[in-house]
Amino acid sequence: MADYLQRLTAAIDRELLVGIDPSRGTLEAAMHYAVSVSGKRLRPLLFLTLLDASGRKAERHIGLASALEIIHTYSLIHDDLPAMDNDDLRRGMPTVHRKFNEAVALLAGDTLLTYAFEKIAAAPLPAEKTVAIMGIVTRCIGKEGMALGQALDLEFRGDAGAISEIHRLKTAELIKGSLLAAAVVAGFSRRRQDLLARAGTALGLGFQLADDLLDVSGDEERVGKKLRKDGNNRSPNAVLHSSPQAVRAEIGRCHREARGWLAELGIDFAPFLFLAKSMLYRSQ
Amino acid sequence: MADYLQRLTAAIDRELLVGIDPSRGTLEAAMHYAVSVSGKRLRPLLFLTLLDASGRKAERHIGLASALEIIHTYSLIHDDLPAMDNDDLRRGMPTVHRKFNEAVALLAGDTLLTYAFEKIAAAPLPAEKTVAIMGIVTRCIGKEGMALGQALDLEFRGDAGAISEIHRLKTAELIKGSLLAAAVVAGFSRRRQDLLARAGTALGLGFQLADDLLDVSGDEERVGKKLRKDGNNRSPNAVLHSSPQAVRAEIGRCHREARGWLAELGIDFAPFLFLAKSMLYRSQ
Repeated sequence: MADYLQRLTAAIDRELLVGIDPSRGTLEAAMHYAVSVSGKRLRPLLFLTLLDASGRKAERHIGLASALEIIHTYSLIHDDLPAMDNDDLRRGMPTVHRKFNEAVALLAGDTLLTYAFEKIAAAPLPAEKTVAIMGIVTRCIGKEGMALGQALDLEFRGDAGAISEIHRLKTAELIKGSLLAAAVVAGFSRRRQDLLARAGTALGLGFQLADDLLDVSGDEERVGKKLRKDGNNRSPNAVLHSSPQAVRAEIGRCHREARGWLAELGIDFAPFLFLAKSMLYRSQ
Repeated sequence: MADYLQRLTAAIDRELLVGIDPSRGTLEAAMHYAVSVSGKRLRPLLFLTLLDASGRKAERHIGLASALEIIHTYSLIHDDLPAMDNDDLRRGMPTVHRKFNEAVALLAGDTLLTYAFEKIAAAPLPAEKTVAIMGIVTRCIGKEGMALGQALDLEFRGDAGAISEIHRLKTAELIKGSLLAAAVVAGFSRRRQDLLARAGTALGLGFQLADDLLDVSGDEERVGKKLRKDGNNRSPNAVLHSSPQAVRAEIGRCHREARGWLAELGIDFAPFLFLAKSMLYRSQ
């Protein structure tokens, strides 16, 4: 299984660079830098392993998989900007605005988002499926999805009750969207799509809680970004407003819930379940 | 004809606000503010009048028309940010980052771009046409289109030879894309699409030259933004690197070229030709 996941990850890493030529100028160099910096590739891996779990040829849809990672990358570039979270490190490397400058980082994020839609439009799928995926993805990352989550994060002033909604929007929506995109490719019924959406939301919430734990207790060098150990309760980090024990218990609940929905769907493909579990119980 | 164009403009203005509810929070309030500020609505008007010229029912495609204006609006919000052009006024009103703040303006731009693709995905068209339009639009505004134009603008250091390419990318590509989107809706042949692309590029170049003239000689109150009369040759303004006379002559050349392509296409619909002409010979 490790081989299988490594092979998929390598294919994603290759595909991410297709069509982006750093020698063409600063804009493409910044885009290339951002997608080259190694990441977990979680969203495309979930998408591809779910396709394999559904008996589809995953690698045929590597372009669509990479579009999901490109969207995630755009959101990280913009979230790291000085006007937002003002972060200097991401995945152990200088953030795009530190490596280049703010204007280039802003434009590289914009252009990666645009490029992701270009890749979705070019997917080798019946046009009806492509349009359905475009609708799902835009709703998951838009004004009632990921972008709203970032807006609420910026406005967060310590109300612990708001944290779960921020997590759902900012993190779980694109993870849900990645699973739903695979469901459309695989031709799942509406009912099965609904079950999968619930599993995706539970996994996404658990994943963000695991991130919150690492943000407070993790090892900066392994996590690869500046951690917030200062107990600043302006950050919507669940651990700062509850306890590591309570957060671990909640992660377990998310995992059980997701497994329940996946079992009902009949998805018992080992790599997919392994990924889902490793999202929640990780040390970096 | 004034009635006809006013009616279309009013329909665009109404459609731009559909689905954006400022009472839902700061993010949608900023999006709503940005699309409410009155503009020329040039791209959707070109799209709709071209559809009418081709015997299609333009108003059926008002959603797609508004998506073109929303993309234009996203690009203005981001170009106005302090890291880019640092402008305080746009269309006579405070820019989004001055009215709200930088983080909200950044997110509102991102979310408008996403929302434009959501609207394109929802267009009442055969899915093949929707996918074709997504491909065209993403290429026109992406790393080899509008976004590259903004990147080259940021790097501009006074090389007059680069101005025309910056204008083509930054301005003409989305205007070309708006015409091509109409061509797809109307079912134009590849050859007719190519002719229309040339007309769109010529019109877009002429439009940007007219903007450059106004930027140097216009009346700030009527134009509604800060004008650059200081002869700063770091700005890729054609007038600063040549003369108003030469720029006016070039605008005339663009107009004749566009009319030539349109005549070859057999497009003699008065409102479309009126719009095309008024883009190039305007005082605000």
